[in-house]
Amino acid sequence: MTYVQFPQQKPIDFVAIGRLCIDLNANEFNRPMEETSTFTKYVGGSPANITIGMARLGKKTAFIGKIADDQMGRFIADYLRRDGIDTSNVVTDRTGAVTGLAFTEIKSPTDCSILMYRDNVADLKLKPGEVDEELIANAKMLLISGTALAQSPSREAVFQALHYAKRHGTVVAFDLDYRAYTWNSDEETAVYYNLAAEKCDIILGTREEFDMMEVFDRNPDRSDSVTANKWFDYSAKIVIIKHGKEGSIAYTRDGKRHRANSYPAKVIKTFGAGDSYASGFLYGVMQGWSLEDSMSFGSASACIVISSHSCSDAMPSADMVHDYIARCERGEITVS
Amino acid sequence: MTYVQFPQQKPIDFVAIGRLCIDLNANEFNRPMEETSTFTKYVGGSPANITIGMARLGKKTAFIGKIADDQMGRFIADYLRRDGIDTSNVVTDRTGAVTGLAFTEIKSPTDCSILMYRDNVADLKLKPGEVDEELIANAKMLLISGTALAQSPSREAVFQALHYAKRHGTVVAFDLDYRAYTWNSDEETAVYYNLAAEKCDIILGTREEFDMMEVFDRNPDRSDSVTANKWFDYSAKIVIIKHGKEGSIAYTRDGKRHRANSYPAKVIKTFGAGDSYASGFLYGVMQGWSLEDSMSFGSASACIVISSHSCSDAMPSADMVHDYIARCERGEITVS
Amino acid sequence: MTYVQFPQQKPIDFVAIGRLCIDLNANEFNRPMEETSTFTKYVGGSPANITIGMARLGKKTAFIGKIADDQMGRFIADYLRRDGIDTSNVVTDRTGAVTGLAFTEIKSPTDCSILMYRDNVADLKLKPGEVDEELIANAKMLLISGTALAQSPSREAVFQALHYAKRHGTVVAFDLDYRAYTWNSDEETAVYYNLAAEKCDIILGTREEFDMMEVFDRNPDRSDSVTANKWFDYSAKIVIIKHGKEGSIAYTRDGKRHRANSYPAKVIKTFGAGDSYASGFLYGVMQGWSLEDSMSFGSASACIVISSHSCSDAMPSADMVHDYIARCERGEITVS
Amino acid sequence: MTYVQFPQQKPIDFVAIGRLCIDLNANEFNRPMEETSTFTKYVGGSPANITIGMARLGKKTAFIGKIADDQMGRFIADYLRRDGIDTSNVVTDRTGAVTGLAFTEIKSPTDCSILMYRDNVADLKLKPGEVDEELIANAKMLLISGTALAQSPSREAVFQALHYAKRHGTVVAFDLDYRAYTWNSDEETAVYYNLAAEKCDIILGTREEFDMMEVFDRNPDRSDSVTANKWFDYSAKIVIIKHGKEGSIAYTRDGKRHRANSYPAKVIKTFGAGDSYASGFLYGVMQGWSLEDSMSFGSASACIVISSHSCSDAMPSADMVHDYIARCERGEITVS
Repeated sequence: MTYVQFPQQKPIDFVAIGRLCIDLNANEFNRPMEETSTFTKYVGGSPANITIGMARLGKKTAFIGKIADDQMGRFIADYLRRDGIDTSNVVTDRTGAVTGLAFTEIKSPTDCSILMYRDNVADLKLKPGEVDEELIANAKMLLISGTALAQSPSREAVFQALHYAKRHGTVVAFDLDYRAYTWNSDEETAVYYNLAAEKCDIILGTREEFDMMEVFDRNPDRSDSVTANKWFDYSAKIVIIKHGKEGSIAYTRDGKRHRANSYPAKVIKTFGAGDSYASGFLYGVMQGWSLEDSMSFGSASACIVISSHSCSDAMPSADMVHDYIARCERGEITVS
Repeated sequence: MTYVQFPQQKPIDFVAIGRLCIDLNANEFNRPMEETSTFTKYVGGSPANITIGMARLGKKTAFIGKIADDQMGRFIADYLRRDGIDTSNVVTDRTGAVTGLAFTEIKSPTDCSILMYRDNVADLKLKPGEVDEELIANAKMLLISGTALAQSPSREAVFQALHYAKRHGTVVAFDLDYRAYTWNSDEETAVYYNLAAEKCDIILGTREEFDMMEVFDRNPDRSDSVTANKWFDYSAKIVIIKHGKEGSIAYTRDGKRHRANSYPAKVIKTFGAGDSYASGFLYGVMQGWSLEDSMSFGSASACIVISSHSCSDAMPSADMVHDYIARCERGEITVS
Repeated sequence: MTYVQFPQQKPIDFVAIGRLCIDLNANEFNRPMEETSTFTKYVGGSPANITIGMARLGKKTAFIGKIADDQMGRFIADYLRRDGIDTSNVVTDRTGAVTGLAFTEIKSPTDCSILMYRDNVADLKLKPGEVDEELIANAKMLLISGTALAQSPSREAVFQALHYAKRHGTVVAFDLDYRAYTWNSDEETAVYYNLAAEKCDIILGTREEFDMMEVFDRNPDRSDSVTANKWFDYSAKIVIIKHGKEGSIAYTRDGKRHRANSYPAKVIKTFGAGDSYASGFLYGVMQGWSLEDSMSFGSASACIVISSHSCSDAMPSADMVHDYIARCERGEITVS
Repeated sequence: MTYVQFPQQKPIDFVAIGRLCIDLNANEFNRPMEETSTFTKYVGGSPANITIGMARLGKKTAFIGKIADDQMGRFIADYLRRDGIDTSNVVTDRTGAVTGLAFTEIKSPTDCSILMYRDNVADLKLKPGEVDEELIANAKMLLISGTALAQSPSREAVFQALHYAKRHGTVVAFDLDYRAYTWNSDEETAVYYNLAAEKCDIILGTREEFDMMEVFDRNPDRSDSVTANKWFDYSAKIVIIKHGKEGSIAYTRDGKRHRANSYPAKVIKTFGAGDSYASGFLYGVMQGWSLEDSMSFGSASACIVISSHSCSDAMPSADMVHDYIARCERGEITVS
């Protein structure tokens, strides 16, 4: 069954709005950052990673965002363009903002943390008047991401993008991507996440992220179905709630629950799992695959990313994902 | 025909959220403020004035807001209580915020201006977690006002109040009450005014205020019917667009336009006209009167207020309004 | 003995830098502000009051400050000009700042308080480049006041004014005038008060104000002579420490202590006592009187101000002060 | 001749106050940062580098500063301790501040630039009450650095440190180290640089830095002797004005000018030249050497640092500097 209808006549497959930043990944693994001495620079930011993922999977993509007027900003725009992503709506800040940074620390494959630089960052300075209505009108899907809601004027830019998407029949996916940094309070977070989610067709998040959105609600048992049903009263068709190692569940308006296969991986770090899962899953949905197949494709894509050093650089092509699944099915990949 | 159904079983008639401040009205009229030397203190703020108006008209009312922990704040709360307004949800700020001030200057009956003090004001510090869900659940109508959307966390408190109103079937009226001060940009204003208006049953504003909300829309002729129809696609049942001296027009979902009688007045100043109009009109609607009668009642109420020195103090009882209309109809009130 | 030599050839007697604001004095006395309903508007701010006092005493005066671009700001500039004060260096703010306000509450002659509006005020926006070096070069005395040190860029403007005064041999008086509001911490306050005081010839303050300046010092007994001697190691020639009802003591470099006569007064409120004392005292010093006579003249001037409703409006002429002293000496003024 | 007398009985040779940060030096040279992909992490910040330099030269040193409560902050403190620097007055921030970053770009040995991250940095959050008076009392020399004057409360902490140094007879050196970032205006910069410089015994800066301090002064020809003489009217004994490739000149109170030898170097980048020069020069002065010898030693130390990849890591021991000079004199080092 098809849960989401895409406007097939639109020329652009996928456009995302939000954070563009730099990941600085420690080259020395399995030790605290105090003891690492070199870092490698990658493009980062959840919506950027997902867009890169969609581009690698063969989709026609575009990005709406703001970059600093410095070497880091130019590096980001160049990288996106090399992947064939339309950057015509990637605006350059002129106020002296900087590029957001995420230093990653990999103490062990399961103990990873991030040191964020989010003060005065360019991505949060995107203004509603800078969002290109035409671009959204021409896209089958718009992806929004929670971090872009954290501050004005980026917050208003996202609501304006949502308004354009509704006006032009563009499907909206919302990757919750909650980061405590830059939000003033849980209450503020909940208010804007809820206002945005009301307008979205597909919502993806962890159980903890949905909990945060329910601080004013009544869901004491943290029930997934209570959570999902709330959004079916608004615009949602698919709500995916991620439960870490126990896997993800997709809820649909018809009351069904959908689960994916999971695959083994030789994990280097957990960063980027969510972004590669999202791009793989949304790709499957756009291809008209079943939710189960789409979720499995997302899972395999995530396995590829967490087995490598970077997030954006490691985003796989469709062939690579299919091949990974085939190798898993042949028993060639096992966790040591 | 009845355009709005009120949940009659609810014990509170009317609750408003937003600005509570102090008006300091020049005692010396018809001169610039540089030449005035004494001022009289009144409770002010559009939603406060409307609530006082509703209380004077005999309605059971309550207020949701925040006051400074100082003499001005205590004066405001005392004044509301003396009018029988429930202040259980009027919270006292503990961060050192001050009470908003509005010095009024009356150069002539038609040349009035306001000098605002809106930095670090208590009313904009109301938090979403401080809004009493029970109070809104128990009210037939919630009034929101645009100034409360101007800054965080008051902005979030209003969206939370809207959320509670929708959850509990409370009718929502939105008095646009746009004040440029405290907003960062027209775009920011438009985004939040639109997000709020989507959830409202009754919207009242001037043509200029609706223009401001349409900066991202296509209404080059500033057509009232284009404006009204936009909101009928969301929740609105009644949209009132005010055209100053040419009078107000109420648009309804059935495509009709409604106009009121107008009345003469010996104008002292124009301040407070909108607030007394709103309370008179909403009172009529709650009484089940026709829109025309409700608008006429609002107009007469406004005439009474602009004929006197204050706004809040001058809010009339129902008898006073009926009496004013009768005297106008007998030709006893004429403009010199 | 003459403790301070003034450069007599300079054409301007007295220039002050700092706060210009509006006092709104309750017209109804002896009650809390919650119960007052009208206020009268006066020019206020300690250095403004002192300058008005000096002008009334016949001195050639000027002011360096910044006013809001509104009715309150224009009222202030007009008022100063009517007293013959040179306002060529009173700059108008263009950033939307407001005029500082001080609502006064007179619960009883000895229980007075002030409700301050000091957010985004014009007077604290004076920039160092806006200070007129020529004006200071041409003045016999510069008065600085502690409130102007509370924030940038006004803080820098004061230090720049001090630099010009030292460069051109202008005598500097420092009225400590400490107000907790607008300072971030006691430590910040102490650092800048001390940096400024190092460059001053005459320092006037209460014991409590000097205590605040000594948070990093060692004066556990709060000894006046320890306090005074600290400043004699820098530039000070006269240090006046006020002990409220016990009277003031002037310390001088030669190790002497000087005390004034005190006079009776029919007190309405205590506001303005310090400002009128300062203008009377500094006037006496400029006239070449003994410190004792100068202090007595200041005390009598203060008595006149606290016996009336306003501060600035009540600043007396020299004849009025001499007359007051004469009437006290004839026993015509007694405290009931 | 000895221009500065050090209090030899004090147990600590050298204490610096101010910026502690992280340098991220591009590993790939001679290309724009857009094309570099890996960075190596070093301790940075001018006063930190100078202190590390003094420690390597064998001096007993300490640091007064503030670090972020994160991996970068801990790395910095560990690094200082490994060099034997007393970090008892290196305070850890608890407000969520971050560690300042400086990404270096080396397009060519003579075309280097820095991308700074200075928003919400821990080093600028040092408070005056956190400065250890005892530590300064026990030190022969205190070094202050201009960047620490850029914001409150660090600005106040530096003035407090200066106050303690004057109280206890500690010699003060001022490395101007002007960085436009984080200052609000040239006027603000000039005011605080001048207030600080008045209290210093040794002042080191480039001609451009001294120009910036003279925006309110009259030195149209940018005369070094006018500049130096201004400070001899206050506390200064030695003023060093650096003229880039033309070399540095030391001015002294006796009216003399002193110049150093210069040495060849195989330059990799110019970063760190000033810091290594300062530590070498101040070391020589503390050893009682002539100014010429001290300056030569500083120059040779600078040559060593600019011939290597890092600043802090490359700070040489005294033997290394003497050896470098000897090799230069033997003609073993020449510029290709």
